[in-house]
Amino acid sequence: MAASTAETRDSPRTRLLESGYASDDDVDGGRDAREAREERGGAVSRRKTFAARTHSLYLGLELERADEEEECESLDFHDVDSHWARRSRGRFPRGWAKWIVAAVIGVIVGLIAFAIDVAVSALFRGRRALFELCRDRVHLALAVFAHIALGVVTAAFAGLLTVYMSPSAKGSGVHYVMAVLNGVHVPKAFDGLTLVVKSIGTIFAVGSGLMIGPEGPLVHIGAAIAMQFTHGGSFGMAELFRSDEDRSDFISAGVSAGLGAAFGAPIGGVLFSLEEASSFWRESTTQRALFSSTIATFVLSVCRAVMSGSAVKEHTAMKQPGLIALGEFDATYYLVEMPFFGALAGVCGVISGLITKLIVVLSEFAPIRNSHRFAQVVVVTAATLGAFYLAAAAGSCVKTSPDETTKWSEASIRLWCKPGEYADVGSILLANKQDVISWVLGAPANAHAAHALLVAFFVTLFGMVSAANLFVPAGLFMPTILWGGLLGRFTAILVERSLSPLGGEIKCNHHAYALVGSAAALAGTFRATVSVVIILLEGVGKSAFLFPLLTAVACSNFTRRMFGASLYVEQLRQAKIPFLHTKPPKSLDDTLCASDICSRDIVYFRTIEKVGVIEDALANTRHNGFPVCSSKSKRVLGVVLRKQLLVLLSRRAFVENLVHAPRAEDGLADESVLGGRTPDDVVSLRVAEYCKELSRVMRRYHNRGTDDDRHGRRATSSIIAMLGLTDVERERRCDLGVFMQLAPPTTRADASARAAWETFTRLSLRHLPVVADDDRGAVIGVITRIDLIVAAARRPSTHDGDGDDDDDDDGV
Amino acid sequence: MAASTAETRDSPRTRLLESGYASDDDVDGGRDAREAREERGGAVSRRKTFAARTHSLYLGLELERADEEEECESLDFHDVDSHWARRSRGRFPRGWAKWIVAAVIGVIVGLIAFAIDVAVSALFRGRRALFELCRDRVHLALAVFAHIALGVVTAAFAGLLTVYMSPSAKGSGVHYVMAVLNGVHVPKAFDGLTLVVKSIGTIFAVGSGLMIGPEGPLVHIGAAIAMQFTHGGSFGMAELFRSDEDRSDFISAGVSAGLGAAFGAPIGGVLFSLEEASSFWRESTTQRALFSSTIATFVLSVCRAVMSGSAVKEHTAMKQPGLIALGEFDATYYLVEMPFFGALAGVCGVISGLITKLIVVLSEFAPIRNSHRFAQVVVVTAATLGAFYLAAAAGSCVKTSPDETTKWSEASIRLWCKPGEYADVGSILLANKQDVISWVLGAPANAHAAHALLVAFFVTLFGMVSAANLFVPAGLFMPTILWGGLLGRFTAILVERSLSPLGGEIKCNHHAYALVGSAAALAGTFRATVSVVIILLEGVGKSAFLFPLLTAVACSNFTRRMFGASLYVEQLRQAKIPFLHTKPPKSLDDTLCASDICSRDIVYFRTIEKVGVIEDALANTRHNGFPVCSSKSKRVLGVVLRKQLLVLLSRRAFVENLVHAPRAEDGLADESVLGGRTPDDVVSLRVAEYCKELSRVMRRYHNRGTDDDRHGRRATSSIIAMLGLTDVERERRCDLGVFMQLAPPTTRADASARAAWETFTRLSLRHLPVVADDDRGAVIGVITRIDLIVAAARRPSTHDGDGDDDDDDDGV
Repeated sequence: MAASTAETRDSPRTRLLESGYASDDDVDGGRDAREAREERGGAVSRRKTFAARTHSLYLGLELERADEEEECESLDFHDVDSHWARRSRGRFPRGWAKWIVAAVIGVIVGLIAFAIDVAVSALFRGRRALFELCRDRVHLALAVFAHIALGVVTAAFAGLLTVYMSPSAKGSGVHYVMAVLNGVHVPKAFDGLTLVVKSIGTIFAVGSGLMIGPEGPLVHIGAAIAMQFTHGGSFGMAELFRSDEDRSDFISAGVSAGLGAAFGAPIGGVLFSLEEASSFWRESTTQRALFSSTIATFVLSVCRAVMSGSAVKEHTAMKQPGLIALGEFDATYYLVEMPFFGALAGVCGVISGLITKLIVVLSEFAPIRNSHRFAQVVVVTAATLGAFYLAAAAGSCVKTSPDETTKWSEASIRLWCKPGEYADVGSILLANKQDVISWVLGAPANAHAAHALLVAFFVTLFGMVSAANLFVPAGLFMPTILWGGLLGRFTAILVERSLSPLGGEIKCNHHAYALVGSAAALAGTFRATVSVVIILLEGVGKSAFLFPLLTAVACSNFTRRMFGASLYVEQLRQAKIPFLHTKPPKSLDDTLCASDICSRDIVYFRTIEKVGVIEDALANTRHNGFPVCSSKSKRVLGVVLRKQLLVLLSRRAFVENLVHAPRAEDGLADESVLGGRTPDDVVSLRVAEYCKELSRVMRRYHNRGTDDDRHGRRATSSIIAMLGLTDVERERRCDLGVFMQLAPPTTRADASARAAWETFTRLSLRHLPVVADDDRGAVIGVITRIDLIVAAARRPSTHDGDGDDDDDDDGV
Repeated sequence: MAASTAETRDSPRTRLLESGYASDDDVDGGRDAREAREERGGAVSRRKTFAARTHSLYLGLELERADEEEECESLDFHDVDSHWARRSRGRFPRGWAKWIVAAVIGVIVGLIAFAIDVAVSALFRGRRALFELCRDRVHLALAVFAHIALGVVTAAFAGLLTVYMSPSAKGSGVHYVMAVLNGVHVPKAFDGLTLVVKSIGTIFAVGSGLMIGPEGPLVHIGAAIAMQFTHGGSFGMAELFRSDEDRSDFISAGVSAGLGAAFGAPIGGVLFSLEEASSFWRESTTQRALFSSTIATFVLSVCRAVMSGSAVKEHTAMKQPGLIALGEFDATYYLVEMPFFGALAGVCGVISGLITKLIVVLSEFAPIRNSHRFAQVVVVTAATLGAFYLAAAAGSCVKTSPDETTKWSEASIRLWCKPGEYADVGSILLANKQDVISWVLGAPANAHAAHALLVAFFVTLFGMVSAANLFVPAGLFMPTILWGGLLGRFTAILVERSLSPLGGEIKCNHHAYALVGSAAALAGTFRATVSVVIILLEGVGKSAFLFPLLTAVACSNFTRRMFGASLYVEQLRQAKIPFLHTKPPKSLDDTLCASDICSRDIVYFRTIEKVGVIEDALANTRHNGFPVCSSKSKRVLGVVLRKQLLVLLSRRAFVENLVHAPRAEDGLADESVLGGRTPDDVVSLRVAEYCKELSRVMRRYHNRGTDDDRHGRRATSSIIAMLGLTDVERERRCDLGVFMQLAPPTTRADASARAAWETFTRLSLRHLPVVADDDRGAVIGVITRIDLIVAAARRPSTHDGDGDDDDDDDGV
């Protein structure tokens, strides 16, 4: 039970800060400077190994493309359970505060959704007014030109913002949200600048008339707003929520609020966040997310009611709360129609699979230079809008029915038709998308001619594919719903025509077909099931459509399987984000063991470790977690994170310093809580102080990191410079035993790789040390997210050779 | 790398079956018979410790009540990952078969739901016809008496079945379903007899006129049907699905199908199964459950459509697919009404809390002897029906409107009123509950007088409380919806009356209030959130009610918090079922370590263990899992389950036997796959054969177990008798290394108890070995479900003493 003599010789008082491992003699106080210097030399010679490991860990899977990629980092979803934390835990009951934050997130998301809605409508109305002015006063050609030119200018503005200010705001951003809920931190994807650019960019991009919608971006915006309330947020808000555990809660709430407001489907939003990204049904998270999304939907709904002039005490227009109003529906359908629904859904599944593939393939040719990216936005927008006008010219003019003048006046556009008429194809392609969807799904039977539907369907697909990879904020929910609805309506006409020779007058419910098409398209493109059904049911407001919708989703998923993963998963793969599904993929071979897939070039510390060794490890590796082991048996005692080490070194929290005078350096002298206090005081520091310091150091570290050492080569010098350790200090020691995560989950080397995967994902881990299956149980490797991804990507045939060899080498 | 000399001396060929632990010298071939005898003597002297452990593990938390309880056992949710299994795994791709089973479950549940629906309606119609016959031909008094008497007889029949044939069929059974999805096997709760008794008993119990419904029982029935498709099912179906992993999948499907059919809410059913019991959003499970519940709802819906005479090519009546038809609704409401909705929901929360408490308190006085239980059913039914008639007499006769004669003719009963009138209170209390609910929720404003609503409300509460603890199958969903709806309607009238002096004619939407009341009552009684909203939305078919419903659920949960856990959780507690929530409860002290909460009296084996030792352990303990450790360092190498050991011993799978002649005994000789084969043959046995044998032995074991040794005292003799080992065989050895679960998750002694809890629940474990935090890492205890429950129930103040002491004693 006594500490080793080597340590007590140094300073008897340091025993107070010991980590409590009696059997541990991890102290190198007995070593002389020569040994220490040799060790540092050794660290330098090991640098090559570190570099190899570094690449596989932090620069995505393919090294040659590393320059283009943002560096991802795993998130911590658990607070560190160290000796220190145990002494000071449980002082901040934050339950009520979390509910308030959830409400605030909901209100902000609701207001932003409202702002986007109003602004996009205004842009469409303005362009239409300009068109009509030019047409009536000057000439139709000028009107078309002005309409297209104004669209290109708005898209260009959105592109300018996105390309030059925040490239992370590109596209829907849902895959970033999935990544962060899965535990991968994508730098800059959720900072304040991205939030602002995404919000403004969405308005202009959607308002330009491209075939995109604001739903996906709203999900990203919701998550970004939620991120501002966690530590690391740009605005430094909410000091209260520094805990890692709160982060995923808030992001789930933000996602649900965004999608809930977009579709007026609070429950659908919650289920989407569960189905697409999260793997746990945590009761508190779910309830808070539901709370947030209800408030967002409610705020949006009230704002729109007030805007449309109805007083509060009037009916609150809650019937159509979302951005997409799906209109009034006839809910009648016949059992014999089910096969047609199924076939339609199957076709939609195939189309969505092809479209996804096409978008993914085209994205390979995306320009890399910023100017090219901007030019792409301008050219593609002009071409798309031009194509829309060409398609509109191929359509015909149709007499406006009373419905079109009242309910769907926004959707039915006159263009070059005579007064009292509207252009059938042109209206679908050129009007505000959300009005068009309401019109297509909700218009009475045969409101649209078959050929108009077909032309609009193909041009919608073209517009969707061309807009998907542009450098503007762009959601694909709306075009997907639109082409599904168009195809559904066309199918309804087809069914009526082909069945009519069989006998009598046969009437189909065109709404049902349109809805089935939309549901199948959504389910196929995004590979979601329950959430899609609930979103559409909440939007339509009639549960009678339950069976057709469920059939649609099932059939669409069935045919869609042939075409690989969903659009989001493809985007995750393209962005080289290591996304882990809860269930191990089938490609992970059954016979692989944990020892076959782990990284072997680990750097581990002893519980009381020399500062120089820690500095070397920080500078020469880019590992984010280091096992802390007993020196004798190499058994894992804990895991210490890079950010913890940075704070400890930056604050000079050395064993020797704790009983000596404070250091006056770096402006830390005054507020240094270590100086002059007894070790016991330090240990009982409040967690909040620790976190405050942590975030400050981390920000400094990150700023440097993103400025000049993106590729990890100059990391060494910058970290050493940042810490500014003197040679004397390098000889000091740090007691990691107090600060490390205690008793982290480990896995044995002979555990199956699939079991290790499940342990990793179900416990939301970041580092899973692998210990030998012999009597000593020494650490032989660490499994991280990347190791699992790499193992799953490996061909099963190749594992036998290297895997078993490794085992023999390191297992001894 | 060579096996120890002690072993090789015995037989060189046994090395083929070695477990592969080169560093392991766990062989006792060198010991002589004297040592072995001493060891067995030691095992007998340890019996007392085993008994203590046994009680804490298997007989619930309070020993004195053990006699009444059924013995629970944890379920395995994972297949054993042993050396053996690794060689033969992956040969049965069963994906498609699982979908077929899910469909079959759906169809059966749908048909049973339909049968219950038809039979209950017939019972109500029959009793009504008898009443009218007696009233018209003889006298009103005889009519009342006959009506009550017939009700008592039907209830008595249900009680007879339940009390004397299958007590597990009592009540709703939802808590059994929660238990099994949580990983606790409750014997007999899901066997074939219970299924039959529950199905028939539900018809008669609900048909008797008691204040109960068939929804809860349908959930239980769905789960019981699903259980027949897993191994251990009574009908021995589906040899294909012996895997432990399939079990929870199928049960989730059954639960969703049951609830989906009951409410016509397939998605609501899935969410209920997720929210109440499961903790993982597993994509495959969710999709299969949705498939199952859609099919069940569809089958029920088609059956009813066919029954009601509409041809298949006609409209399929999908608008109201469930057992509860909530009728057509007016979806208008005003924003200013939200506070009223909230207040109503809050009151409902308080009432549901009080009702739950009352039911729980009353259940303490439930009779124990079967005859008393049966008498209770008779007396309470007579009293309840009598009270209903008294309350009906307190009501008045109301003129029948056209609606009542067409839509709600089943609900509005004439009783003693004049022709063309109906008894207002009597109709609500005495008619078929599902018609009454449709009437109460769907009738136009002011269809019911305020005093009738109030009287019916109180009598409904009385009826619900009195019926809740009876020994008949009884669900409380329906009475809960009914009293909520009655209170809601009464509130609507109250609001109208109290606001009318303020000015003008104020009209409330009575449907909205009724629905809010029902939702709040459901949410309060069952503590569910999302699923309740979805179930009601799917039932109502109008998503416009989303905000009121969400408000209702939120407010109800808010006030309900004061009254403790939900009814199901209380029932779980009463049944002494160790239910584990995913999140550790707050009562689990922050400073507790894994070593403080684990059981210390473990029995562990070596990888090659003497048969006599195994037999002793099986006979003298009731542990269901034993760590397999290396003998030198006591490090955990694996976990072997009791059922595996029983099979191994019963098949004489001894190391020595594998190279000798087969044993002709127990009828196993012919099919004994061990005899005459080489060890390698044995190891590569197909898993299916192993499972077949396993289930046969297990059935034998279980039958004996339940016949004569329920309290674990005669277990010793019966197991020894069953195995029939001779003295020579007791000296043989078993190689457990081949069959044990490899590299099971372990936790370190200094890990926090909360972390151990999360590891346990998130990985769905059954045994979590605790290893010392010293260099040797020897096993010091095992954490099971019961240990976690006991630790959570302990007062935080008491832990310091024993917890730390234990740590010092065993941690060395």
